[in-house]
Amino acid sequence: MAFNHKHLIDITEYSEEDIKLILETAKAFSEVNERAIKKVPTLKGKTIVNMFNEPSTRTRSSFELAEKRLSADSLNFGGSSTSTVKGESLVDTVETLNAYKIDCIVVRDKHAGAPYIVTQNSPASVICAGDGKHNHPTQALLDLYTIWEHKGDFHGLKVAVVGDIAHSRVCGSLIPALKIMGCETYAVAPGTLLPPAPEVLGCDHVTSDLDSVLPELDVVYMLRVQQERLEGAPFPTIREYHKLFGLTKDREKLMKPDAIICHPGPINRGVEFDSYMADHPQRSVILEQVYAGICVRMAILYLLLGGADNGLAS
Amino acid sequence: MAFNHKHLIDITEYSEEDIKLILETAKAFSEVNERAIKKVPTLKGKTIVNMFNEPSTRTRSSFELAEKRLSADSLNFGGSSTSTVKGESLVDTVETLNAYKIDCIVVRDKHAGAPYIVTQNSPASVICAGDGKHNHPTQALLDLYTIWEHKGDFHGLKVAVVGDIAHSRVCGSLIPALKIMGCETYAVAPGTLLPPAPEVLGCDHVTSDLDSVLPELDVVYMLRVQQERLEGAPFPTIREYHKLFGLTKDREKLMKPDAIICHPGPINRGVEFDSYMADHPQRSVILEQVYAGICVRMAILYLLLGGADNGLAS
Amino acid sequence: MAFNHKHLIDITEYSEEDIKLILETAKAFSEVNERAIKKVPTLKGKTIVNMFNEPSTRTRSSFELAEKRLSADSLNFGGSSTSTVKGESLVDTVETLNAYKIDCIVVRDKHAGAPYIVTQNSPASVICAGDGKHNHPTQALLDLYTIWEHKGDFHGLKVAVVGDIAHSRVCGSLIPALKIMGCETYAVAPGTLLPPAPEVLGCDHVTSDLDSVLPELDVVYMLRVQQERLEGAPFPTIREYHKLFGLTKDREKLMKPDAIICHPGPINRGVEFDSYMADHPQRSVILEQVYAGICVRMAILYLLLGGADNGLAS
Repeated sequence: MAFNHKHLIDITEYSEEDIKLILETAKAFSEVNERAIKKVPTLKGKTIVNMFNEPSTRTRSSFELAEKRLSADSLNFGGSSTSTVKGESLVDTVETLNAYKIDCIVVRDKHAGAPYIVTQNSPASVICAGDGKHNHPTQALLDLYTIWEHKGDFHGLKVAVVGDIAHSRVCGSLIPALKIMGCETYAVAPGTLLPPAPEVLGCDHVTSDLDSVLPELDVVYMLRVQQERLEGAPFPTIREYHKLFGLTKDREKLMKPDAIICHPGPINRGVEFDSYMADHPQRSVILEQVYAGICVRMAILYLLLGGADNGLAS
Repeated sequence: MAFNHKHLIDITEYSEEDIKLILETAKAFSEVNERAIKKVPTLKGKTIVNMFNEPSTRTRSSFELAEKRLSADSLNFGGSSTSTVKGESLVDTVETLNAYKIDCIVVRDKHAGAPYIVTQNSPASVICAGDGKHNHPTQALLDLYTIWEHKGDFHGLKVAVVGDIAHSRVCGSLIPALKIMGCETYAVAPGTLLPPAPEVLGCDHVTSDLDSVLPELDVVYMLRVQQERLEGAPFPTIREYHKLFGLTKDREKLMKPDAIICHPGPINRGVEFDSYMADHPQRSVILEQVYAGICVRMAILYLLLGGADNGLAS
Repeated sequence: MAFNHKHLIDITEYSEEDIKLILETAKAFSEVNERAIKKVPTLKGKTIVNMFNEPSTRTRSSFELAEKRLSADSLNFGGSSTSTVKGESLVDTVETLNAYKIDCIVVRDKHAGAPYIVTQNSPASVICAGDGKHNHPTQALLDLYTIWEHKGDFHGLKVAVVGDIAHSRVCGSLIPALKIMGCETYAVAPGTLLPPAPEVLGCDHVTSDLDSVLPELDVVYMLRVQQERLEGAPFPTIREYHKLFGLTKDREKLMKPDAIICHPGPINRGVEFDSYMADHPQRSVILEQVYAGICVRMAILYLLLGGADNGLAS
């Protein structure tokens, strides 16, 4: 099957077929990650720049590990100490990186659209690792991978995203990705945390009443609560949020027996869920999502950088 | 000889035999470090996370170099910018690392007991790289290696630790380690810098009078003076400290001809010793300790991560 | 041809022959950098310490990438968090690094002379990566490489350095290097930004009137304006600077048809040039300089570390 992409910026540019190929490739790399020697020479001699213009521990380290396990040379570039936040300067920085003869730029930036600007100014492949409040496509792919592992088929799957949908870049990629795969999507949030037009994002159902939809759901995707965002807002307080939207042992009774719980991490115990639900051995797949992050990032790097020519693994 | 440990947290869990095996293995790795090509493929494809939740230049870079020379993939994770200081959050962070399928966590944390908590929450091997004021076992091993190189046999060797014993994590591992190896131990410090019960730590002799014991000692281990700790304390001032406990050219006359001087670094010239003693070509083994750090860290990584299956060296 | 140097501290210690060998070697490494697999095993098992005691993004990442492409093990050591700024402490730090059995120290320090002190205290090869306001020899080499690519022969070439010559460490190496290669050199600056004795540096001509010399020049090397240095100074303001010394579309009419424009980066658009000149497809070689930085750093590391024994490339 052909994979005709150079960049991963906006998940909506990928077809169902493209995403399935990524998931299948990630599955193959999962085997590498289960080995005693978790390393393949696939991207040896390729240079990948991690340009994180915003702090990030988890996404950055997940990419870094994926790159190392593919034997690429990684260069960490950027961070708060550099001056790449202004539009013009971003272009000059990218041109400097181009002069290094690099193969890929992984870019996180708080300015929406920055990764796209990079594609317009570099011959390298560009991967968005978080883009303002808009996109976080590798997060969506790792979420899909995790759901796929548990549910097998996406068609008709009922998936709710719960929480601060208005300010979430996770949603900006995840909800469209779920639609591409054929899922039925629910936005569940207090009115203050809903975007103006959730249906534009791809939400089939919108509600502020979690309990009314919980019995139908196959996947409950809890977004991280930015506690500083709730503080000072009229509604809800953190306690109210936990009462109305938190997944608790009590609320579990409303869930389908095989419904699973996702979260992009890091979690706030006592807010998005109680510890019973966060650590639920059958339902909580939060740590599987972290693992899936390594596998899908290896897969997308491999597919974009033409590692196919070197074979998947040694 | 069997090595049946998974972690290195508390040196007192290791037997004399265990420690001898580490020293012999470190000796073998010393040969690698003397080569033109200072690298072996022993831990290729293994992932080691350096989780330093406290600043460290020397210990971190020593581990990093040991890992590179064993061809492991290192991931630096943590530091003051991450939120792993709270007990609960530490567990969630470790579970994230587990999901990366890592082989080893090297952990430094100002909270005593943190490395042990990591062992309880990870299938990976855990190495303590400094733990509150309690443990610093790889420092003790590199000290033993250096002493072994000079003295050959530990039994009956008279070793004094001089300085701020109350607040030293070096002592917390070194004094018990010296006892395991059969040394006779001395604690030498002003009363204000002695712990409540030095004999519990394993000190055979306790004194505030360095000159009275100096003639008996085979090894004088000077602890680093934290100058900010002396400032404002009633006694001693830095000048008084240097006068009473500093190793000087004058005081050398009291030492055995073959007595050696150790220090964990970085040294304060003019405080723990004068430059004559710090740079003494026969007595000062401070830089040998730094070198030993690379060798024993390669050895412990090799022994804990089962590198034996791949052979010691290429 | 023999290359009998152990360090690169001061470019004036290198002969025309030495520099030609570096440029030829860099040319060979340029081919590596054009490959799909941009990596050679030349320095495998060598340890290179990047000791940057001053912030640096571009020079540090250029060295880091050169080291990775030569398969060396790099250790980043230093930065503002360490205490290597005081003379005495620098020596103790270097002795610690020596104990790691390292092969090379790349050192940037705001204190002039620091790299030389390192050579006096280490058996490793030492490369100056920027030294106070005095030296920046790898910058000079990458500049020469770029000029050589465009002009072929250095003899009689007319090269002007324009701007803050008094405070530029780029000039401290570049002007003497141009003289070694046989160029005719011009210093062009307002009087306030000229050093006391520009002829000592190697300037054949000194002027504050750019337009009067522009018609003769083969290479116009624009220095970066430190805007904070102009603020508060009596003359010139940034606007005056741009008017008198900025390369603009208008001023281009005075230039020889094949004259090229260099700049060490990062550039200030609207100050040193307008965007027309900064991005001029025939004249501006600024991004070629960045690329040359990788090639000459690979070359100098290779020549100093005796990688010749392993062959240039796999």
